[in-house]
Amino acid sequence: MRYTDFFIQTLKEDPADAEVVSQKLMIRAGMIRKLAAGIYNYLPLGLRSIRKVENIVREEMNRAGAIELLMPFVLPSELWKESGRWDKYGRELLRFKDRADREFCIGPTHEEIITDIVRREFRSYKQLPVNLYQIQAKFRDEIRPRFGVMRAREFIMKDGYSFDADVEGAERSYWLMYGAYNRIFERCGLEFRSVLADTGNIGGSFSHEFMVLAPTGEDILMSCNKCDYAANLELAELGDIKKDKPKTDKEERLPLSEVHTPSLKSVEGVSSFLKVHPSNLIKTMIIETDGEPVAALVRGDHELSLTKVKRAIGADYVELASEQTIEGVTNGPVGFSGPIGIKIKVIADWAIENIKNGVTGANKKDFHLINVNPDRDFRVDKFADIRVASKGDPCPKCKSGSLSSSRGIEVGHVFMLGTKYSEAMNATFVDASGKERFFIMGCYGIGIGRTVAAAIEQNYDENGIVLPVSIAPFEVVILPLNVSQEQIFKTAEDLYSKLKKFGLQVVIDDREESAGIKFKDADLVGIPIHVVIGQRTIKDDSVEIKLRKGGISKKVKIEDVEKEIESILSSTN
Amino acid sequence: MRYTDFFIQTLKEDPADAEVVSQKLMIRAGMIRKLAAGIYNYLPLGLRSIRKVENIVREEMNRAGAIELLMPFVLPSELWKESGRWDKYGRELLRFKDRADREFCIGPTHEEIITDIVRREFRSYKQLPVNLYQIQAKFRDEIRPRFGVMRAREFIMKDGYSFDADVEGAERSYWLMYGAYNRIFERCGLEFRSVLADTGNIGGSFSHEFMVLAPTGEDILMSCNKCDYAANLELAELGDIKKDKPKTDKEERLPLSEVHTPSLKSVEGVSSFLKVHPSNLIKTMIIETDGEPVAALVRGDHELSLTKVKRAIGADYVELASEQTIEGVTNGPVGFSGPIGIKIKVIADWAIENIKNGVTGANKKDFHLINVNPDRDFRVDKFADIRVASKGDPCPKCKSGSLSSSRGIEVGHVFMLGTKYSEAMNATFVDASGKERFFIMGCYGIGIGRTVAAAIEQNYDENGIVLPVSIAPFEVVILPLNVSQEQIFKTAEDLYSKLKKFGLQVVIDDREESAGIKFKDADLVGIPIHVVIGQRTIKDDSVEIKLRKGGISKKVKIEDVEKEIESILSSTN
Repeated sequence: MRYTDFFIQTLKEDPADAEVVSQKLMIRAGMIRKLAAGIYNYLPLGLRSIRKVENIVREEMNRAGAIELLMPFVLPSELWKESGRWDKYGRELLRFKDRADREFCIGPTHEEIITDIVRREFRSYKQLPVNLYQIQAKFRDEIRPRFGVMRAREFIMKDGYSFDADVEGAERSYWLMYGAYNRIFERCGLEFRSVLADTGNIGGSFSHEFMVLAPTGEDILMSCNKCDYAANLELAELGDIKKDKPKTDKEERLPLSEVHTPSLKSVEGVSSFLKVHPSNLIKTMIIETDGEPVAALVRGDHELSLTKVKRAIGADYVELASEQTIEGVTNGPVGFSGPIGIKIKVIADWAIENIKNGVTGANKKDFHLINVNPDRDFRVDKFADIRVASKGDPCPKCKSGSLSSSRGIEVGHVFMLGTKYSEAMNATFVDASGKERFFIMGCYGIGIGRTVAAAIEQNYDENGIVLPVSIAPFEVVILPLNVSQEQIFKTAEDLYSKLKKFGLQVVIDDREESAGIKFKDADLVGIPIHVVIGQRTIKDDSVEIKLRKGGISKKVKIEDVEKEIESILSSTN
Repeated sequence: MRYTDFFIQTLKEDPADAEVVSQKLMIRAGMIRKLAAGIYNYLPLGLRSIRKVENIVREEMNRAGAIELLMPFVLPSELWKESGRWDKYGRELLRFKDRADREFCIGPTHEEIITDIVRREFRSYKQLPVNLYQIQAKFRDEIRPRFGVMRAREFIMKDGYSFDADVEGAERSYWLMYGAYNRIFERCGLEFRSVLADTGNIGGSFSHEFMVLAPTGEDILMSCNKCDYAANLELAELGDIKKDKPKTDKEERLPLSEVHTPSLKSVEGVSSFLKVHPSNLIKTMIIETDGEPVAALVRGDHELSLTKVKRAIGADYVELASEQTIEGVTNGPVGFSGPIGIKIKVIADWAIENIKNGVTGANKKDFHLINVNPDRDFRVDKFADIRVASKGDPCPKCKSGSLSSSRGIEVGHVFMLGTKYSEAMNATFVDASGKERFFIMGCYGIGIGRTVAAAIEQNYDENGIVLPVSIAPFEVVILPLNVSQEQIFKTAEDLYSKLKKFGLQVVIDDREESAGIKFKDADLVGIPIHVVIGQRTIKDDSVEIKLRKGGISKKVKIEDVEKEIESILSSTN
């Protein structure tokens, strides 16, 4: 490709409204342009990287036996009503009516549509398993779209769905995808981890997220310093916490009493006023669920994980209760809740079991209770791991390591869905004995645009983007430093033809611009291999080959350029 | 690909609601499935053909110097308001509000978005020309979606847009695209014609449609029997009609008089009642436009072309007037309009000029006027070619040929837009003299799904689809007639590996099905080359190679299969 025949418009200044580095650099390099909040144009340069990620995804999906199809993005409400999500899915599901006043939505994900296809076309266990995927632009009306294409409203996604006859088959399909995802992100040249994750709105029984590690990531993942355990912060389990010897085991149980704590609602306030360590406070949170509300207890120095609460009580939906609900349930104001005397179900973190003479709210304005003893003063319906893990907590897998946190960007997600959708939509097949049974499903997503953005978050420097070769828009840029100089021009053009014939994705910067501008743009855009042709080397029949990553450069004889590039490419990904 | 690993679900029966043959066959062959009115799933088999058309389009667009990008499908109203189309575009433009109550639409075409991109990024004539395209699913809320993916609401389209500094450049860009389109449809193996066409809602100054010829086509095109002239029926010009010698030249002009024609409103009624030939009637139609209404006159035996009226008076918008407007303009009821005495502008077809002692409405209930002479009795503001051409009319290009009609399916459209959008949206560049000037634009569309459907309308027989090799889902199908027979199975598997290695797109029907079912499915799906492996030939170390098109079959030694297929492929497209 010739620079003058292509469309690379770089910007000198950072865009004013860009929040993260990938967003800034993708805009400055001319990969994307914002059209509206969370809605972006992919300019030709950006689209080249998108297509490369798509191709890697497609190759690995096909290799794992998945089959590509294409569903529409305008979806009729009927199937969403069948699954129950028409009402459950929040306002991210963009709904509208067509001219005939029928209800539709723009597809944010396609479980309903694919389940409908499969229940019509796959009637016998002999046709299973089947794994279908598509690569398509989707839309979620995020309340706060941000970070460029990383959290856009319209975004390109690979979504895949597996259908099996039994649980063993479904797990096989799941791990096949898990393997394919590992290969995909490896081939994209990314440093990533797969972590245990929550199943969120999609539902289902277990799942893994694929996180690209980057300090700017929105997600926090906890991983073990001794084994391969890694999980999303909200979900990271804890090692043998519950068997911890209580430090205060021999402490005498003092009589329960009420103390006046005027306007003190926070853990910090109460603990400093009463001179007790926050670990001796029992935080009581009222939680609304799709069933009855529950009270969840964690220590004052711990943080509640709503995700864990959801799993522990088997709810579809959990949320911190409104003021009104709290007052109705506790008979007291917000900030003074406690477990003593309340009628709803109480779930407590394991660490609560060991508290002696603790402190909790009195369910009464400006009062707390002291000398609270869980085994004496209130009922706990269930103990469970419901707190967020923190640095230093023991690893739940190897038991000997401890957890630490890092930041990541979720680029892929695999879910074991089970029969959530097949039951709701009555999607069945006939098994070997002639019985109708529900499909066991899995679903598998990759954010294509987000993968490019995450790669940039992980690979950049002060001069711009440093993309891995496999997903860079071009592999090689030829930089003739002075196109009006005959020998430089001719050498550059010859090399351009030769490298193209050699099958390389090469762009020649044939603009009449200064060397400075050409270097700046080549660095900003992040093309991995720069072939610099200038006065200084040409007199020795040589050019300079510079690697964008690390900046190492080398003088190479013109006739050896192909060989040198080949060796560079085979030593990188 | 193995049949048992892929997703080919054929149906024995025609779908009940399918109207045209391509729709029936695409559904029966398992290429598409309907999700809602005008909204389809592309199953894996159909998607393979779609991708092949896309690749041909992409290669030829790139070869012609166009650059691919990708715009969103959810588009903000602001740009559409700038161009004026937010109000002008009818209900096909699906509008909705997002959660923040902002107005958006789903993109039916992208002139506004691309013009916005180019006005921001291309500031100097030195950067021009530029030609940008995308391949994307679009949505038009058609009032009557029909014919499967041929006239769907959601459909895959290649849309491209060129921007030039001057008219000569713009014409060069236009003809480059015209050439690329010819190559594209040739490579798709289609019999097609490019015809002069109306510019419709998109606006602009001239355009060509690319029509796949098929008796089931919705469009009528007129073409010359002696030269290459071809045009859409609505637009087909006429040869030297206006210079026709009037047959009644020497006829005496009789005095104008009124006759009672009770309830006679039709040409047939009036002409048989008054015993005059319909060619002596002057039909008067009142037309509403974006400016003042006009009266348009054509002979009783001719049909008015609104498209030609629009061009003749330079209107943006024309429509047959409402009853109310007609009565207001003529002071008479509908069905009795005539040009005599009316105040609005009168435009008449050339054929009107030669009428002597004709008949027209009296602008009075149940009365007509006879002995009407255009040059004596009423004013004509403009004579023009405003009637629809019919079979036998002289060719406007070579003058010696005559026109005949055929049916076609529009698969592509190239428009010279001029400055319609750049003026409306103030999209300018700086020319060599430093002056701001409007971009001269062209736009270029191809219906990807419709191309596949049109190919099937042109290529099918009683057994199913007969697709051209270049857009068939697979090139070769291997049909082992009995997979449980060791030698047949082994030969089939060996050939499958060999042909795959040879780079062919091959599918092996490894199902345990009868020969009859395998033949039927292979025919229905339309794979061009069938390699049949059965008892009858295998004993001579041979297989049968059958061509789907024409059904010719040939016994070929197993070791010669590759060579034979290669020779078949090189002799077809």
